[in-house]
Amino acid sequence: MPDLKYDVLGIGNAIVDVIARTEDDFLVQQKMSKGGMALIDEPRAQSIYDAMGPAVEVSGGSAANTIVGVAGFGARAAFVGKVKDDELGRAFAHDIRAAGVAFDTAPSSDGPSTARCYVLVTPDGERTMNTFLGAAQDLHPADVDPGMVAASAITYLEGYLWDPPHAKEAFRKAATIAHDAGRTVALTLSDAFCVDRYRAEFLDLIRGGTVDLVFANERELHSLYETADFDTALKAIQADARLAVVTRSALGCVVIGKDEVVMVPAAPIEKVVDATGAGDLFAAGFLFGLARGRDHKTAAQLGAMAAAEVIQHMGARPEVSLKVLAQQSRLPL
Amino acid sequence: MPDLKYDVLGIGNAIVDVIARTEDDFLVQQKMSKGGMALIDEPRAQSIYDAMGPAVEVSGGSAANTIVGVAGFGARAAFVGKVKDDELGRAFAHDIRAAGVAFDTAPSSDGPSTARCYVLVTPDGERTMNTFLGAAQDLHPADVDPGMVAASAITYLEGYLWDPPHAKEAFRKAATIAHDAGRTVALTLSDAFCVDRYRAEFLDLIRGGTVDLVFANERELHSLYETADFDTALKAIQADARLAVVTRSALGCVVIGKDEVVMVPAAPIEKVVDATGAGDLFAAGFLFGLARGRDHKTAAQLGAMAAAEVIQHMGARPEVSLKVLAQQSRLPL
Repeated sequence: MPDLKYDVLGIGNAIVDVIARTEDDFLVQQKMSKGGMALIDEPRAQSIYDAMGPAVEVSGGSAANTIVGVAGFGARAAFVGKVKDDELGRAFAHDIRAAGVAFDTAPSSDGPSTARCYVLVTPDGERTMNTFLGAAQDLHPADVDPGMVAASAITYLEGYLWDPPHAKEAFRKAATIAHDAGRTVALTLSDAFCVDRYRAEFLDLIRGGTVDLVFANERELHSLYETADFDTALKAIQADARLAVVTRSALGCVVIGKDEVVMVPAAPIEKVVDATGAGDLFAAGFLFGLARGRDHKTAAQLGAMAAAEVIQHMGARPEVSLKVLAQQSRLPL
Repeated sequence: MPDLKYDVLGIGNAIVDVIARTEDDFLVQQKMSKGGMALIDEPRAQSIYDAMGPAVEVSGGSAANTIVGVAGFGARAAFVGKVKDDELGRAFAHDIRAAGVAFDTAPSSDGPSTARCYVLVTPDGERTMNTFLGAAQDLHPADVDPGMVAASAITYLEGYLWDPPHAKEAFRKAATIAHDAGRTVALTLSDAFCVDRYRAEFLDLIRGGTVDLVFANERELHSLYETADFDTALKAIQADARLAVVTRSALGCVVIGKDEVVMVPAAPIEKVVDATGAGDLFAAGFLFGLARGRDHKTAAQLGAMAAAEVIQHMGARPEVSLKVLAQQSRLPL
């Protein structure tokens, strides 16, 4: 087995978020499904942008947010994802590197611009996302460095990778290398509509052992098993997955192994300002705990803490040091 | 006199802010003057960006922030400033238009990229700015539409316009048109170092009646008259200016006319998160009040209210409706 160089390597869509506050009416007018993520083409991106209010640009991307969180806890983290060599692509690269993450994926020099996600935040703090995949579509298996994967304790993949045409091959390549090196592979189901698009393939990944650990929120889990009953879905994922973590917003989370069911409450918060990144940062804390050899309950508490931080401000990346926050919360690092 | 179409027209550098939190040590290492604005070239911009932490991109520019604030109060507002037709330039144009401001300045299609200001926010909420003027340097007198100036009750200009090579001609052209149409011309001194660069010219503008109203903070006023004594400086500006407003951070402000001195306290706040835009938004409230025919005390209260809003969050543009805020504060609109 090669020497361990990274605690967690994330592979995902490299996206810059364009965030604006809005009223619920706007979502209705624009026929957006509140709380979901829709894939959009460039003309639709332009039309949404023209209609939406003043915005802020912040680096995002689900797995990228998670990896920034992992680095924020003080772990060694790396990311693979495709931007274009344009202004937003350079901002993405700057921000993830400035957060302490190794990021070396070559940017594309032509083709579509860096991916953008138009995030509409309603007064209740819920976020509704519209993603133009842009340059993220150019992520190929060749962008996955086998040495990097083999040198990472956990390789973390996002379900959204099933959307760009070649990224799923990159995903499978990374999973094979990781397992050949005796490492762990984790997957987030990303979004209920994403599960709906790729249900059969996601179930294959989980049942076939391509992934060792699955993150899902309640809606994604219900979508995966096409049931409205939580306990039915929970039993199904327990049967299918080696290890699963189901997040339930304010209700906390459930860690489900073959022989364990651990429930951990959500961390207390004052007000949800912007839910963007809640799941991403939960995964950051859990993966960090796992990489540090903590038990599942502690890992879930670290996840809950990181999620609580990110939903109390705009944007999907932590504004304070998660390491310091964990120390203040007396959680082990 | 042509029909009134706008309450306030702003002319200034069109800039996108790149904002990051930092510690005081970073300012020392980078030899930055805390609280000031330094002009930087592109290599220096790159070197600061490489060294600074993860950032957020938000539309800025001093007069642009002011004009967005004026529109936020519900007034008719317009802006003239130069961006390039690039990603950040399109973001600037989107954001100011989405805020309800008329913005029609043609973007440059070649030459340097859209202006960026690297804003470092220290834990005390103070902001230190480094501006790469980029495309803002291409603002020419031809960009000033005489009809628009003549149709605006107040034309508001920033002292920073003295930095790009041709913008001061645009400034003088606008002032002449405004006065020929019987309108009011206002100027902010912008920054103590800016005053230091252009002291004699600024004094000429004020003494010669090119501007009717001057905004200055304490440091700028001291720089203008090269004195450390506030009362001396205050008497000097009273002698030189038709009307002046001097802001003093937590100490509130002083409105100085030939026959009046009005002191208005700062609005109460919980915590300074990011002082960026405090002066810009104060000017927004004052100009709005003036355009609505309010007395100077009320105008200053509107300014204090808007400044208090903007310093309690990151970024230099209001996050809530200033109109609603004024109603809640029982200030007249």
